[in-house]
Amino acid sequence: MRTSTRFTDGRVPEPGISPLFERENRWQRWLDVEAALALTEAELGVIPGESATVIARAAQLSNFDLARVQHDMAVTSHPLMPLITQLSEVAGEPHGGWVHWGVTTQNVTQTGDVLLVRQAHSLLRTWLGRALRAAAGLAERGAEVVMAGRTHGQHAVPITFGFKVATWIDDLIRHVDRFAQAEDRLFVALVGGAVGNFASFGSLGPRIQQGVADRLDLRPADVPARTMADPFAEYVCLLAMLAATGGRIGREISTLMKTELGEVREPAPRETIGSSTMPHKVNPQLCQDITALSAQIRTLVPLALEAVLHEHEADGACQSMMDNAMTQAIMLTGDLLTRLVLVLSGLELDETRMRTNLDLTGGLITSEAVMLSLGTSVGRQNSHEIVHNAASAARNGTSFADALAKDPRVSENLSSSDLADLADPSSYIGLSTAISLESADRARKAADAIDSAALPHP
Amino acid sequence: MRTSTRFTDGRVPEPGISPLFERENRWQRWLDVEAALALTEAELGVIPGESATVIARAAQLSNFDLARVQHDMAVTSHPLMPLITQLSEVAGEPHGGWVHWGVTTQNVTQTGDVLLVRQAHSLLRTWLGRALRAAAGLAERGAEVVMAGRTHGQHAVPITFGFKVATWIDDLIRHVDRFAQAEDRLFVALVGGAVGNFASFGSLGPRIQQGVADRLDLRPADVPARTMADPFAEYVCLLAMLAATGGRIGREISTLMKTELGEVREPAPRETIGSSTMPHKVNPQLCQDITALSAQIRTLVPLALEAVLHEHEADGACQSMMDNAMTQAIMLTGDLLTRLVLVLSGLELDETRMRTNLDLTGGLITSEAVMLSLGTSVGRQNSHEIVHNAASAARNGTSFADALAKDPRVSENLSSSDLADLADPSSYIGLSTAISLESADRARKAADAIDSAALPHP
Amino acid sequence: MRTSTRFTDGRVPEPGISPLFERENRWQRWLDVEAALALTEAELGVIPGESATVIARAAQLSNFDLARVQHDMAVTSHPLMPLITQLSEVAGEPHGGWVHWGVTTQNVTQTGDVLLVRQAHSLLRTWLGRALRAAAGLAERGAEVVMAGRTHGQHAVPITFGFKVATWIDDLIRHVDRFAQAEDRLFVALVGGAVGNFASFGSLGPRIQQGVADRLDLRPADVPARTMADPFAEYVCLLAMLAATGGRIGREISTLMKTELGEVREPAPRETIGSSTMPHKVNPQLCQDITALSAQIRTLVPLALEAVLHEHEADGACQSMMDNAMTQAIMLTGDLLTRLVLVLSGLELDETRMRTNLDLTGGLITSEAVMLSLGTSVGRQNSHEIVHNAASAARNGTSFADALAKDPRVSENLSSSDLADLADPSSYIGLSTAISLESADRARKAADAIDSAALPHP
Amino acid sequence: MRTSTRFTDGRVPEPGISPLFERENRWQRWLDVEAALALTEAELGVIPGESATVIARAAQLSNFDLARVQHDMAVTSHPLMPLITQLSEVAGEPHGGWVHWGVTTQNVTQTGDVLLVRQAHSLLRTWLGRALRAAAGLAERGAEVVMAGRTHGQHAVPITFGFKVATWIDDLIRHVDRFAQAEDRLFVALVGGAVGNFASFGSLGPRIQQGVADRLDLRPADVPARTMADPFAEYVCLLAMLAATGGRIGREISTLMKTELGEVREPAPRETIGSSTMPHKVNPQLCQDITALSAQIRTLVPLALEAVLHEHEADGACQSMMDNAMTQAIMLTGDLLTRLVLVLSGLELDETRMRTNLDLTGGLITSEAVMLSLGTSVGRQNSHEIVHNAASAARNGTSFADALAKDPRVSENLSSSDLADLADPSSYIGLSTAISLESADRARKAADAIDSAALPHP
Repeated sequence: MRTSTRFTDGRVPEPGISPLFERENRWQRWLDVEAALALTEAELGVIPGESATVIARAAQLSNFDLARVQHDMAVTSHPLMPLITQLSEVAGEPHGGWVHWGVTTQNVTQTGDVLLVRQAHSLLRTWLGRALRAAAGLAERGAEVVMAGRTHGQHAVPITFGFKVATWIDDLIRHVDRFAQAEDRLFVALVGGAVGNFASFGSLGPRIQQGVADRLDLRPADVPARTMADPFAEYVCLLAMLAATGGRIGREISTLMKTELGEVREPAPRETIGSSTMPHKVNPQLCQDITALSAQIRTLVPLALEAVLHEHEADGACQSMMDNAMTQAIMLTGDLLTRLVLVLSGLELDETRMRTNLDLTGGLITSEAVMLSLGTSVGRQNSHEIVHNAASAARNGTSFADALAKDPRVSENLSSSDLADLADPSSYIGLSTAISLESADRARKAADAIDSAALPHP
Repeated sequence: MRTSTRFTDGRVPEPGISPLFERENRWQRWLDVEAALALTEAELGVIPGESATVIARAAQLSNFDLARVQHDMAVTSHPLMPLITQLSEVAGEPHGGWVHWGVTTQNVTQTGDVLLVRQAHSLLRTWLGRALRAAAGLAERGAEVVMAGRTHGQHAVPITFGFKVATWIDDLIRHVDRFAQAEDRLFVALVGGAVGNFASFGSLGPRIQQGVADRLDLRPADVPARTMADPFAEYVCLLAMLAATGGRIGREISTLMKTELGEVREPAPRETIGSSTMPHKVNPQLCQDITALSAQIRTLVPLALEAVLHEHEADGACQSMMDNAMTQAIMLTGDLLTRLVLVLSGLELDETRMRTNLDLTGGLITSEAVMLSLGTSVGRQNSHEIVHNAASAARNGTSFADALAKDPRVSENLSSSDLADLADPSSYIGLSTAISLESADRARKAADAIDSAALPHP
Repeated sequence: MRTSTRFTDGRVPEPGISPLFERENRWQRWLDVEAALALTEAELGVIPGESATVIARAAQLSNFDLARVQHDMAVTSHPLMPLITQLSEVAGEPHGGWVHWGVTTQNVTQTGDVLLVRQAHSLLRTWLGRALRAAAGLAERGAEVVMAGRTHGQHAVPITFGFKVATWIDDLIRHVDRFAQAEDRLFVALVGGAVGNFASFGSLGPRIQQGVADRLDLRPADVPARTMADPFAEYVCLLAMLAATGGRIGREISTLMKTELGEVREPAPRETIGSSTMPHKVNPQLCQDITALSAQIRTLVPLALEAVLHEHEADGACQSMMDNAMTQAIMLTGDLLTRLVLVLSGLELDETRMRTNLDLTGGLITSEAVMLSLGTSVGRQNSHEIVHNAASAARNGTSFADALAKDPRVSENLSSSDLADLADPSSYIGLSTAISLESADRARKAADAIDSAALPHP
Repeated sequence: MRTSTRFTDGRVPEPGISPLFERENRWQRWLDVEAALALTEAELGVIPGESATVIARAAQLSNFDLARVQHDMAVTSHPLMPLITQLSEVAGEPHGGWVHWGVTTQNVTQTGDVLLVRQAHSLLRTWLGRALRAAAGLAERGAEVVMAGRTHGQHAVPITFGFKVATWIDDLIRHVDRFAQAEDRLFVALVGGAVGNFASFGSLGPRIQQGVADRLDLRPADVPARTMADPFAEYVCLLAMLAATGGRIGREISTLMKTELGEVREPAPRETIGSSTMPHKVNPQLCQDITALSAQIRTLVPLALEAVLHEHEADGACQSMMDNAMTQAIMLTGDLLTRLVLVLSGLELDETRMRTNLDLTGGLITSEAVMLSLGTSVGRQNSHEIVHNAASAARNGTSFADALAKDPRVSENLSSSDLADLADPSSYIGLSTAISLESADRARKAADAIDSAALPHP
């Protein structure tokens, strides 16, 4: 029942996001901020230059006694003081006295965590790019594969499988756009001191924040308020929206895999066992994981939103809530995307079953084509009524073609060869193929754009 | 217990968003789409030009028998057919036969609803602009008004009231930016036919969609899939984020109004009654409304996200969920913003209480100033320890100044006049005033930008 | 986009819950509390007996000028004072001076709202009883109707349709039990004065609360704290759990109605129109409504839970949030249950399609039966492996029977007639029929229990 | 940013719930079910008695190669098959062939997880009992400690601190009651085979399930459907309601600790550091943790509710969602309760500050007492108006006593000594003390009841 292990973990080649969130990586990011702070303060004459050099060199976790850090955290209930203390010791006197000059804990931890989030975000973007490329390939494979389009669970009019994938690509590209727009708000250095008004720095404050931001490839905060939580809430919202699309895809593929539909199959190694008691079972395990992950990620949004409601100039309860929402959402999204890449890359299509299913309604699936063709003669409203009646009759035993033929308003306007043409699903797919191919192209361009705009490290 | 009435409604001069969502306005927006469709189709030779003209002229709700529409909806369980039928009748034969040609209900209702959402969005932007201007005035009024800055509910270091408002402005401006970025994804015409592949239009499809979009000042959908729900989920997320900031402000003002703090007071007409049994009560009613509305809006996000999980090519359950989430979120945000404008415009500041509160800790509120000043001599770590001990002593009866003076490491480095200067809260407010004024300026610019970029009507 | 109207409203014979929540009914419930209070206080000698009689007689909304009440609420921003004022006037001097003696607004509004909730709860119970009876009938109709059991969307082993309904009944009965257990916590009179410590009543306090409770058929609060919100949060949770079961049923029926499954059909009047462009469409509209309503109700839970976090001795923001969560959840549950009754009562079963679907896997659906039969000879583990391999071969073209027969470990232990028997789905339905019938019986008993334990009025 | 570590962990003497959820404990619970199954089946003649004895003896995790289990899970993507395989091997031929006879994986994992949940629930109950005892002590300590009662953040009428604690106790006792009522639904053995209709067992099915349940001290499922998820959703709801009360307490104490109120202080070891830059800071860290944990737990409810919407006869996505919701909710509730016990046990009260705060309104806090006293002469409505006006004047500079005295309707009816008596907060606390003491008593009784009704082990 632990979050971190899923039964399908063995199938996913990636380690996911979790290694990034190991405490050692997190602590190093915090030390990166302490180093950038010392160097900036020295440059501006706030602390001695030599001290800054020594501090920056000391700010490597390899210099630290990690067990003591852990122990001192337990004793002080403070997340950063033990690191500051050791950093001061490693730097030695008199340099150590200039460590952490003028800042508050959250300046360091939040800015450091933003570096961590950027590392994670970089991985998520990479996987999203792969998902887009996999979807592009799938859209092309399915561009001309005719199948039933379904609305409200019922056969509507025909589509191709590629068109279905195009709708996924369309969602995913919007998510890429949203990511790009949010980055500017998210990757921000917050160095405003105890309450964010630069009291400890005086008029040098904005330049110190700018210098730290520059060294870390971040943007300085406009108002370095410790209550600035909405960019994190936004990120959780964006991950949840992406997860919603992921869930849509996962559930769709699960549904198309149902015994009665049988149109696709998610990739599975031979060794997979579906059931301990039903030896024939092949279950949509990856897609079920995706569906469950989608729900888990979406459920974190209210937590992130409530965490915006900081009281006064800083609020530790809100910080703790947001930390939790961010960490969970990011790690779970990693698990979701890696599985999505697997599924989209290896999905098997069963064109025969798709064709068989198309014929299930005995021609009703092209009723719109008949209505519009007839409508040019008798008007759309009349035609709707005529075809609606024929369709009702068809559900009661008569064939749809017969029911149509019986109505003189049909037979006067459409020949039986017209009707036969109109009943061919493959001739009524509209622009499904073109949309598939264009979307594949858009997907690859979006993936290229991701690859060519790598984020700064770490 | 009805959603729509709050006890403070009488104080809000605006009627809110709800009139827009009356069925007449909604139906007219749908008819606007039918008209744009007919005109476009005529232009492209799909239907006769004269029919289009007649249909466009007929598509005014004043031509309709609304009671019959309502009755027919009950009979058919269909949201649009009764309107189509009457539109055909009003247009008359043969023109009526070309009404609604080639499209599906959702094409019309969703595109029409987008027009409605744009009307509402236009109001929300206006009110957000007013909130920004009111906040600008408040930031200026409070730019030099010194008060306690508080973190984790405890006095931290001094700020000015304007700085607090600056943090609200900073949030609000990011919300304005997010709105602007989302508009392009949200205000989209969806005219792709029964499943979105233009089957009923053939190769003319994209041009028909483009034409309808142009006539309605919308952008055409890239892939006109009926499952495209993420832009609506995004909008609900954005409203919820705005509501979270609103909630932060509302709760903050409520808290500052507490009897023990007494630093501000929300505006209230003389006639307001706080309690039926405690005649002295003056309650933060508008702020409580804002807080409650914030929670109500935030709670809608999971509904909107779940509504993205459409099955197959369209899913009525998801549409219904999203309709509900959108309508509720928009109307409630209107109620929140109109109250926020009132509160920010009329907030009273009590500078005397702020000053009294500043002195509550007997000087501890400037402990950072002492620590940094002392730290330049003895190093930050040592100084933190010295001041931490003096502060602990101060909580046990000794005054902070006395406790500091007792430590030779202090007395050697800081004169009593130094200590007195360091203990003056008004000399340790950092850049609070400058940030207040800059933020007021940013707020007005953002409000100007809103006003100068009005949205198309309706 | 208004909450209150669904396209299927015309099909639902019940007016739903909303009439109960009209302001007139709510105000009358509040006046009922004022009357009970006056009578109790007179009995205990707190106010004059004659005044109580006059007040109780006056406390009928028909004596009031409703327009003035509405107007005065707008002016005072107070929900109850205008009613108290008019009640005093109607009672006349000197009696009017004893109106609302010693209580605070929330004592009256919350206790009155509890009466309102009980009225609504009474309706919900009635509809839940009807749903149980309808489910009982359905379980009996389907008790022997064999169909595919499916796990993870894949055929598992056979069941009967009645067994599926039995799982719904089992959920519903637990909901009935939860309702009954919560009633004692929910239907409580709260008459503790301004902060709940009976300060205005002194030692008579508990007896006054007891007297009001007795007159209204409620239980007195143990501690009449105005912060007591968890019973309302509990009720919203219970409604959401019921809605989750409703959603499970609605989604299941929608799925079974898919063109490819076609095993059931929800009832629909002839006049229903499924699509404006696809004349053949018959959509699961009621079930989609149920699914959407389920999501809407579930989404209210976080609001109700957040509303528990009252600050100090009363918190208007939390009250407002809870009012909203309760009202919405109750009205939406009414809409859900009335639709559920319709669907369960009128569901059509297609036994032919069920049978056709059973054969889709060419016998794999009884693989467990083969495995267990073979397992008695070769052990379960070996048998699982043998049958798993045969099933894999079956998916690659060989028939399952042939694949089994090829393995000597099978042919040595099972004759071909054994295999044929094991492959008959209708002989491997376990206790499906018995469970169906027992569950129908339990459902009727639960419905009887509801009917025989009517709640007090109003 | 990891869920599992909080900065205050060092202060909590308990290891929390997490050790229970280590995979070894979980796997052993599953093996307990396999053992109970084998013994029951032997008793009923389904499998050989000797085999059952051997299997039951083998079903100890110490007999297993855990690394191989882990490896095989990765290869097969199956949670249980590797354990079954090794159990069969440890049992040896021919006994191993009778392992897991007739059941499906979920029967074993869900029933085993229920045992695990019961272990965790037992801990939660214990801690809840301790919280009740601590609250009892606190209610007694504060029974006569007068302080301001506050509604909507404003002084209302006086209470004692014990009365405030009584409202917490009242909530907690209802949670205890809910726990007890849910246990019967939650602690259920589910042994119905592949889809829950006992197909593999035939008519012996119910007796097999009963036997397994008896051996594990569980109740057998009424309908052993694999879709039975509502009892788990209920448990998550109950934990979230408890967490809401916890959040109410945590936020209240944080608020009372504000510098301006200063009425209480949460216990903290000397070594605790509040801030790296403000040496004087003492923050409400435990209460902030409680507040954050409350939000984290509450946010899981929608996930648990969505997990009820199983499709068909079992749905792995829903199972995965529920596993996650349950595990998280249980572990976080453990973290919350252990902190709540610490805070309630060690809370320091500052009676002096409470008294100082009471005087802040210059007597307005007893305005109700004045109004009621005066009301016996002039009527409640008139009196409300008189006192309301005096209170308004008091806010504008006049003292409340003077303002009252100026009104002849007051001076005619109340002497200045009457007014002085009415202005004494300590004489207007109603039954606060009695309610405190009664609630302490109720709390101890509830804790005793928990202790005397221990749950079965494991």
